[in-house]
Amino acid sequence: MRSNLFVILFALFALQGCATQPLRGTGDLGVVVERDSGKLQIVDTTARTILGEISGLGDLSHATVVFSRDQRYAYVFGRDGGLTKVDILRRRIVKRVLQSGNSIGGAISQDGRLIAAANYTPGGVKFFRSDTLAQVADIPAIGADGKRSKVVGLVSAPGDRFVFSLYNAGEIWTADMKAPAHPVIHKFTGVGKEPYDGIITPDGRYYLAGLFGEDGMALLDLWHLPNGVKRILNGYGKGSRRLPVYKMPHLEGWGFYKHYAFVPAVGHHEVLVIDTDTWRQAGVIPTYGQPVFVVGQPYSRHIWVDFAFPDNGAIQVIDAPTRRVIRTLKPGKGVLFLEFTPRGENVWVSARDSNKLVVYDTATFRRVTELPSHKPSGIFFTPRAYKLGW
Amino acid sequence: MRSNLFVILFALFALQGCATQPLRGTGDLGVVVERDSGKLQIVDTTARTILGEISGLGDLSHATVVFSRDQRYAYVFGRDGGLTKVDILRRRIVKRVLQSGNSIGGAISQDGRLIAAANYTPGGVKFFRSDTLAQVADIPAIGADGKRSKVVGLVSAPGDRFVFSLYNAGEIWTADMKAPAHPVIHKFTGVGKEPYDGIITPDGRYYLAGLFGEDGMALLDLWHLPNGVKRILNGYGKGSRRLPVYKMPHLEGWGFYKHYAFVPAVGHHEVLVIDTDTWRQAGVIPTYGQPVFVVGQPYSRHIWVDFAFPDNGAIQVIDAPTRRVIRTLKPGKGVLFLEFTPRGENVWVSARDSNKLVVYDTATFRRVTELPSHKPSGIFFTPRAYKLGW
Repeated sequence: MRSNLFVILFALFALQGCATQPLRGTGDLGVVVERDSGKLQIVDTTARTILGEISGLGDLSHATVVFSRDQRYAYVFGRDGGLTKVDILRRRIVKRVLQSGNSIGGAISQDGRLIAAANYTPGGVKFFRSDTLAQVADIPAIGADGKRSKVVGLVSAPGDRFVFSLYNAGEIWTADMKAPAHPVIHKFTGVGKEPYDGIITPDGRYYLAGLFGEDGMALLDLWHLPNGVKRILNGYGKGSRRLPVYKMPHLEGWGFYKHYAFVPAVGHHEVLVIDTDTWRQAGVIPTYGQPVFVVGQPYSRHIWVDFAFPDNGAIQVIDAPTRRVIRTLKPGKGVLFLEFTPRGENVWVSARDSNKLVVYDTATFRRVTELPSHKPSGIFFTPRAYKLGW
Repeated sequence: MRSNLFVILFALFALQGCATQPLRGTGDLGVVVERDSGKLQIVDTTARTILGEISGLGDLSHATVVFSRDQRYAYVFGRDGGLTKVDILRRRIVKRVLQSGNSIGGAISQDGRLIAAANYTPGGVKFFRSDTLAQVADIPAIGADGKRSKVVGLVSAPGDRFVFSLYNAGEIWTADMKAPAHPVIHKFTGVGKEPYDGIITPDGRYYLAGLFGEDGMALLDLWHLPNGVKRILNGYGKGSRRLPVYKMPHLEGWGFYKHYAFVPAVGHHEVLVIDTDTWRQAGVIPTYGQPVFVVGQPYSRHIWVDFAFPDNGAIQVIDAPTRRVIRTLKPGKGVLFLEFTPRGENVWVSARDSNKLVVYDTATFRRVTELPSHKPSGIFFTPRAYKLGW
């Protein structure tokens, strides 16, 4: 009887640490957003398989994900204002808070301790402890016009800072969150009409916001805040030959070759080339459709592009030095997202309307495998934990 | 009785996956080489603690480490020719092979399936399956002179290629290992006297070898192999004012600012600035001693430098845009290595002769903590799994 009890206690002790999941590394894991069903698929990029699914994440129609610095936890920002902490290893929700009425995205601080959520309703940024999701700060986005604004383009920046844009007010703010109870905020007003997305350069120096209400982009040098925000690239945007914009391009992925950055042109069938030394347009590359994501393949001269409706059945590969499209691929219907493995040997593509994920070998452009997925949108691999901005 | 059996089986099943170790992410782990005792410490960069130790790794007097793409396993290359696969989560050796008489380093293929070991004795490169450590290929390094040469500067490159240098023969070879049974080798002879280390640029394009036997470096453009190896930087090296070289500098870490690379000058108290557009020397920065590692802080304008004996009690921080030393720190005696956390908020420094690791906050240059370590040398964090070259 005593030995029986001992065995039971031992079993419980053993289980405590590992539930029914075996030990495994987290470096080759990722999550795929199944937008219509409020689920996440957990994927393995080594075996190229789906390990499991997590449900109950609410409205994921425009969801984004960041990772804890140990890569065990995914933080999911949903359209319904839900912020959900997911344990990728145990494949279950650890905590879920409805932190606003409508959220557009989020980021994790450089030190990994703070989660920031950018909200439309009510407009502002809320900050949470990454371990407990307890709220530690709230910055309402009240512009110089006295009105509350939607917040977009939220990124993490060096020194536990965050940078974000006020869509309605046309402002860019930086928030130093070293002491979360006492945020140090810098506000830059009149940066341009309707900033719709923002990115930080790979060196952590510049914050760039695309403008939807007018041409051009707004540039903030984080090394020299007193210099303020500059307007650049007046040729960037919808311009005079504007087409209807079915999907806002995303800026987060951009590709680089030397000091040239490759970004989507809003409302045109073009990728723009920007000289990041002068921040002037240095070229334009005609593409199959209106680019949504323009993403550099790691350790490569290739840049991959997907497109907005009605051209969202194709992706194209641009050779950066020659600025030519070298390949057009047709992964399926409703292509929404592409994510590279960190060393760039594979790219995973979500084809929403074909209900599948397609994995390509980037060296040969051949399909390595296809995996079933219900209306997949974003694909997020754990290496994002190391990238500032997210 | 049956329930008793059931409980025992259940306990065994539960244990199978997790031993006595709890589930945890592997994104914030690392290993520290304790060179004199043949041990590895396992460290946690979030809690900044030592989680445990693994012994029995042989002669670690010039050891290096690469990681599996899932970040669970470390492959340790020892001076005694030992290649050891370590399970970081279970903290134990999975497999150990004595694959040569004397090994200088190694790398893992872009797809994570092959481990390559660069050997002095007998000179050459051996390749192993990363899962089983079964040998799958052997490339003896027989130079154009018909003699077997030590191999140095082995890096992984895009397309499951490896690049390495023949120290005695003065050659650079590339090996395409897509089909390990049939390596495709390109040999470049007469590249210069005694190449002693090699690196690949962050875009995966150029392989650079430092020369010990003469001034200058050898540059191979992997995008244009038929162009051959070019000699660059004739001012790089020991030059006429040469000092005794107590420790060979390492090239692997270099810092970047825009298109400028910062590398150690051999035998001088200087860091060289190289213009990577022209591959010409663009400046020189006087330093405290002869630099060994020159490493760029992620998402920052700062570059950190450690030094050879007798100046190995200090590290210096260079501000890259202004090219000035802005800080001199004294972590302890016998500083050998520095490793940044992936988002750059901390740097870990090994002080061998003070038997400790020192962790700095890079924003304030303050010591965050110190951890005991017996004669520590290399510090390797799991984010290296994603970096091509290693």
